[in-house]
Amino acid sequence: METVVVTDPPRADVEDAAALGEYGVATVHEALGRVGYLGPEFRPAWAGARIGGTAVTVLCWPGDNLMIHVAVEQCRPGDVLVVATNSPTTDGLFGELFATALAHRGVRGVVLASGVRDVAELREMGFPAWSRAVSAQGTVKATAGAVNVPVTLGGQLVRPGDVVVADDDGVMVVPRGDVSRALSASQARVEKEAASRAAFQAGELGLDRYGLRDRLKEFGLEYLSYEDHQARDGR
Amino acid sequence: METVVVTDPPRADVEDAAALGEYGVATVHEALGRVGYLGPEFRPAWAGARIGGTAVTVLCWPGDNLMIHVAVEQCRPGDVLVVATNSPTTDGLFGELFATALAHRGVRGVVLASGVRDVAELREMGFPAWSRAVSAQGTVKATAGAVNVPVTLGGQLVRPGDVVVADDDGVMVVPRGDVSRALSASQARVEKEAASRAAFQAGELGLDRYGLRDRLKEFGLEYLSYEDHQARDGR
Amino acid sequence: METVVVTDPPRADVEDAAALGEYGVATVHEALGRVGYLGPEFRPAWAGARIGGTAVTVLCWPGDNLMIHVAVEQCRPGDVLVVATNSPTTDGLFGELFATALAHRGVRGVVLASGVRDVAELREMGFPAWSRAVSAQGTVKATAGAVNVPVTLGGQLVRPGDVVVADDDGVMVVPRGDVSRALSASQARVEKEAASRAAFQAGELGLDRYGLRDRLKEFGLEYLSYEDHQARDGR
Amino acid sequence: METVVVTDPPRADVEDAAALGEYGVATVHEALGRVGYLGPEFRPAWAGARIGGTAVTVLCWPGDNLMIHVAVEQCRPGDVLVVATNSPTTDGLFGELFATALAHRGVRGVVLASGVRDVAELREMGFPAWSRAVSAQGTVKATAGAVNVPVTLGGQLVRPGDVVVADDDGVMVVPRGDVSRALSASQARVEKEAASRAAFQAGELGLDRYGLRDRLKEFGLEYLSYEDHQARDGR
Amino acid sequence: METVVVTDPPRADVEDAAALGEYGVATVHEALGRVGYLGPEFRPAWAGARIGGTAVTVLCWPGDNLMIHVAVEQCRPGDVLVVATNSPTTDGLFGELFATALAHRGVRGVVLASGVRDVAELREMGFPAWSRAVSAQGTVKATAGAVNVPVTLGGQLVRPGDVVVADDDGVMVVPRGDVSRALSASQARVEKEAASRAAFQAGELGLDRYGLRDRLKEFGLEYLSYEDHQARDGR
Amino acid sequence: METVVVTDPPRADVEDAAALGEYGVATVHEALGRVGYLGPEFRPAWAGARIGGTAVTVLCWPGDNLMIHVAVEQCRPGDVLVVATNSPTTDGLFGELFATALAHRGVRGVVLASGVRDVAELREMGFPAWSRAVSAQGTVKATAGAVNVPVTLGGQLVRPGDVVVADDDGVMVVPRGDVSRALSASQARVEKEAASRAAFQAGELGLDRYGLRDRLKEFGLEYLSYEDHQARDGR
Repeated sequence: METVVVTDPPRADVEDAAALGEYGVATVHEALGRVGYLGPEFRPAWAGARIGGTAVTVLCWPGDNLMIHVAVEQCRPGDVLVVATNSPTTDGLFGELFATALAHRGVRGVVLASGVRDVAELREMGFPAWSRAVSAQGTVKATAGAVNVPVTLGGQLVRPGDVVVADDDGVMVVPRGDVSRALSASQARVEKEAASRAAFQAGELGLDRYGLRDRLKEFGLEYLSYEDHQARDGR
Repeated sequence: METVVVTDPPRADVEDAAALGEYGVATVHEALGRVGYLGPEFRPAWAGARIGGTAVTVLCWPGDNLMIHVAVEQCRPGDVLVVATNSPTTDGLFGELFATALAHRGVRGVVLASGVRDVAELREMGFPAWSRAVSAQGTVKATAGAVNVPVTLGGQLVRPGDVVVADDDGVMVVPRGDVSRALSASQARVEKEAASRAAFQAGELGLDRYGLRDRLKEFGLEYLSYEDHQARDGR
Repeated sequence: METVVVTDPPRADVEDAAALGEYGVATVHEALGRVGYLGPEFRPAWAGARIGGTAVTVLCWPGDNLMIHVAVEQCRPGDVLVVATNSPTTDGLFGELFATALAHRGVRGVVLASGVRDVAELREMGFPAWSRAVSAQGTVKATAGAVNVPVTLGGQLVRPGDVVVADDDGVMVVPRGDVSRALSASQARVEKEAASRAAFQAGELGLDRYGLRDRLKEFGLEYLSYEDHQARDGR
Repeated sequence: METVVVTDPPRADVEDAAALGEYGVATVHEALGRVGYLGPEFRPAWAGARIGGTAVTVLCWPGDNLMIHVAVEQCRPGDVLVVATNSPTTDGLFGELFATALAHRGVRGVVLASGVRDVAELREMGFPAWSRAVSAQGTVKATAGAVNVPVTLGGQLVRPGDVVVADDDGVMVVPRGDVSRALSASQARVEKEAASRAAFQAGELGLDRYGLRDRLKEFGLEYLSYEDHQARDGR
Repeated sequence: METVVVTDPPRADVEDAAALGEYGVATVHEALGRVGYLGPEFRPAWAGARIGGTAVTVLCWPGDNLMIHVAVEQCRPGDVLVVATNSPTTDGLFGELFATALAHRGVRGVVLASGVRDVAELREMGFPAWSRAVSAQGTVKATAGAVNVPVTLGGQLVRPGDVVVADDDGVMVVPRGDVSRALSASQARVEKEAASRAAFQAGELGLDRYGLRDRLKEFGLEYLSYEDHQARDGR
Repeated sequence: METVVVTDPPRADVEDAAALGEYGVATVHEALGRVGYLGPEFRPAWAGARIGGTAVTVLCWPGDNLMIHVAVEQCRPGDVLVVATNSPTTDGLFGELFATALAHRGVRGVVLASGVRDVAELREMGFPAWSRAVSAQGTVKATAGAVNVPVTLGGQLVRPGDVVVADDDGVMVVPRGDVSRALSASQARVEKEAASRAAFQAGELGLDRYGLRDRLKEFGLEYLSYEDHQARDGR
């Protein structure tokens, strides 16, 4: 494992990151073409947060949070701390004291491939955290890792400076080079969805609105009354 | 996979379905003889909902929500949409726009063997959803499946028109032919539990109330003081 | 499986148990040297409870809650019921009626290696429960087990009379003989953490506060600018 | 749970069942339209067996194998024992003594939603078993269940008398009414696959053989040299 | 975590341990009253080994195999190395070089709560290993743990000097004080099973042999012909 | 999702890839500094294969193997097919007919994040496959994906042309730029391990050979006789 701290990586614009956060994970994920989602294992420590920020990445040894201490110093306002480990662990690498230090530096939240602890305190502080587990299991500070190198979490590559968006639906990453495209496509999607929402509230069907009805025949779909279906199935 | 939409299946009475919903999953499950529960993997997207409704069933290809669009049209007031997939997936097949369309039609909630997304929006709308995952992962509309055929979720067979009951304890199915038995047995159970609750609040023990004390000897159960047990174990 | 009920095991002091509960799981776990945690699979049925109490242990057959009925009689004010099974199960061995009986006896909560049900009712009653699953699946009363013998849950040995601490971070056990050490070490940790919290709020870094900066060189950690790192990696 | 033993259910023809077994799971599953597979959790206790037989179904309480004793008596030559439980368990409900009794009756194998034990002995005997776990955990005989009622395993409904096919790829069910269709479609598929195999051995591509090449454009697929792709991606 | 190496713990007799190994896990587990099994997660690295030996226990930090190096020196002929970690990990803490060193000392095998690697080499050497994962993931030697303290794996307490039995059915522990009882009860069980095996090969039914037939009525079990059952169910 | 086929990506040398394959996963993983391992979920379909080859990468929609058909045409002798999906699936995307086509083109094996089927046939053919599941579940050919774009499997980024090494310990990736370093470091490691193996066979201890004994005191490790430890613990 590379043992390096990369300083001052270029970051996406923090205002753009915040704007993507407001669109939310499902919208930005669709807007980008259904890519970048870290999967259903990443869950919020408490419900209701929605953030976007620029990634400071950390690679830790399992059971060891030394590199989070190192990473705090590399954080700026608008960042999101993204913690990977080099093999699977659920240990509680992050808790309320780290959150206090990060909040002081203007960090918007944390995403961990490991566990998080002090969940009640994080909820009270309003410091957002997403992780694959809640665990009180404590850690040592004995093995070096890396800060601000590319890491993978949930099957996604996260580079330092990429935008991380997270809410009750989970976590996604927007590569730094895709931010402006993500912004415009998200805005377009929000507008399209508002129109669809109004239509559905008025009773229109998705089958008609999305032009699906004609394609159903191509797909070989057949409509049968319950009685005809029972008769054909012989049950 | 059969590609068919079965229209207008006979449904259990919607008032009966609502009444079963009010009894709740644990009560109805016990009343029916401990059958019909979909298991602990099905969790509510938000806490506090409790519903009963008639099943409109959907069978989707994994990663594909085409058939949910088809199913919306088949829904009536009092229905619950029940979505199975023909192989395991956690993708977010269902979100807020579908909920908007279903709410317009008087549908009481949704149960998915896959994932659900837009959790924050569903909570705000008050549209209940149960699923095996929360996932923002989007889907295509490329492969036909079926609507209102029998499906299995969580090891239970759900037929169109069966009653689905769901609350914070999970989801269960009541076959259409068992609804009246379920209603009367649930009412009996509620009354019996009210009496037990009052007895327990007054300090009676289940051992006595349920006549278990005499059977403990048959079971070979022995009472020993801590000291005697320590002495016998030799530790 | 031993089929025995051990009566009146010596218990840790109930006030001490309550005091450990107030410190919370993460603090006591660290204070004891990072031992005793039952792991991330044990989750609260509802968020926000924090308890400490003395263990009454139960060993059940999977799908069978007979021994919980037996155990209720052995409970005193300040106890926590701790339910293990002799093989893995998610069935809902415990619900609102048991909680009613235990609340009457002054029991502070329940921890189950199996599932729990009546989650909405437990939340309304304010009766705390931690378990590995929520499940409405009902059980029989057909096979004897044991009460107040040592059991293991989540890889931890729990003896009757040990202290169990539980909150939103999960569950831990403090052996009866370690309670006074746990109390003093927890108090020391709380004070140390308060000082660290104040320092972090004032902008101090953990790297400096914990004297880690000097050790980073020993660990072979290197600092590189983003540009130098890109150049070296050749990507 | 219904407590009944249904005697002498009509069965599919045992020769037909054996013939389906020879085609194997992947072939019959495809031939039937990609339905009936019990999923990847069902694994053989030892590699290399391939069977087809008629289902005798059993529904057990978790941790309890009483009903397997009852079911043995209902078995005939050509049957496959199919054991479900009414809630999830990994306990070893089945071992070498049961296999001895079933082999005497001409039973072709066993499929269990629970665990199996005596794996080394089963391998030596050549008695095939598929299960979701290997577990030595023993069981009681304390709670009644059912024999030859419909059960669900791995999301599939298995009725007594249906054909069960199992090999190193897992387990599938063919409803009794679909057996003759399954036989002819499997034979057709085997012939088609033999032709494809010969073509692939001669270097033909699936793209051409299955007429997929023309459809790739419809799907919007683009071919780019590595250099052009690098240039466009800007990385 | 306690950081200690306990030297020369009393061990069960190595011949007794070997004899238990020959009986195998399922037999000894039943003979002891269905206790001591580590559960289905512990699987052999290669099939066909069957051992019994005396436990040398190790407690490691996840991702760190330092203490295995320390433990090798504490091993004697007839021992089995038993490795726990203080939080869950799948890392490959053990491989062929450790096996070489242990084989030199007459150690009979290894059981790990973590992962194992060099599986092909272990199979060639004939050195038996059981673990919860196969993983090539390497580890550091940076954090102290303990040797020959009580540990828990798979929900079982293993004390140094206890007997560990392992085969294709998994792993179990026999407390040192229970060895002679385990030996005699296993021998009795083997004899009883031999008689049952012969009876089953001659066509006797377990229902009769175990006297279960009379109890079926108590259990409320009903026998119905297929036709009568269909008629009653109305399906 | 990008829908593109990238043709003729530069590949690592096929002889170098084969040489890395001979060293095996555990050796190369250590030699590279403990990076690149895809984790314990990737298991061989049959035991005993050991390969190294150059990656042709495929990104599929879950339940859809269209892109594998497209990828076959891009394969050359010495390649390994590496199949990712854009959300989790266990479906059997790959079987014997694909293996036949790939074997004709000199492909050395396949690695799938999904399931594989026709396991018995692959074993007979000797075509190596690693996957996260064995599953007969069939797939459609309805949605485009990508060939020879970077993909992530098991938390590792795999680029087309990288070297993939796989054996009974699982799968790892060696970035194209690291191949020559991996070769020399693997050779050095093999030589060092041969010396250690000889030393261990002669009875030397790792504690001495690796100079760990002096560091044990720094780690605070204490040696105590069993009697002294019992006395101190008070148990």
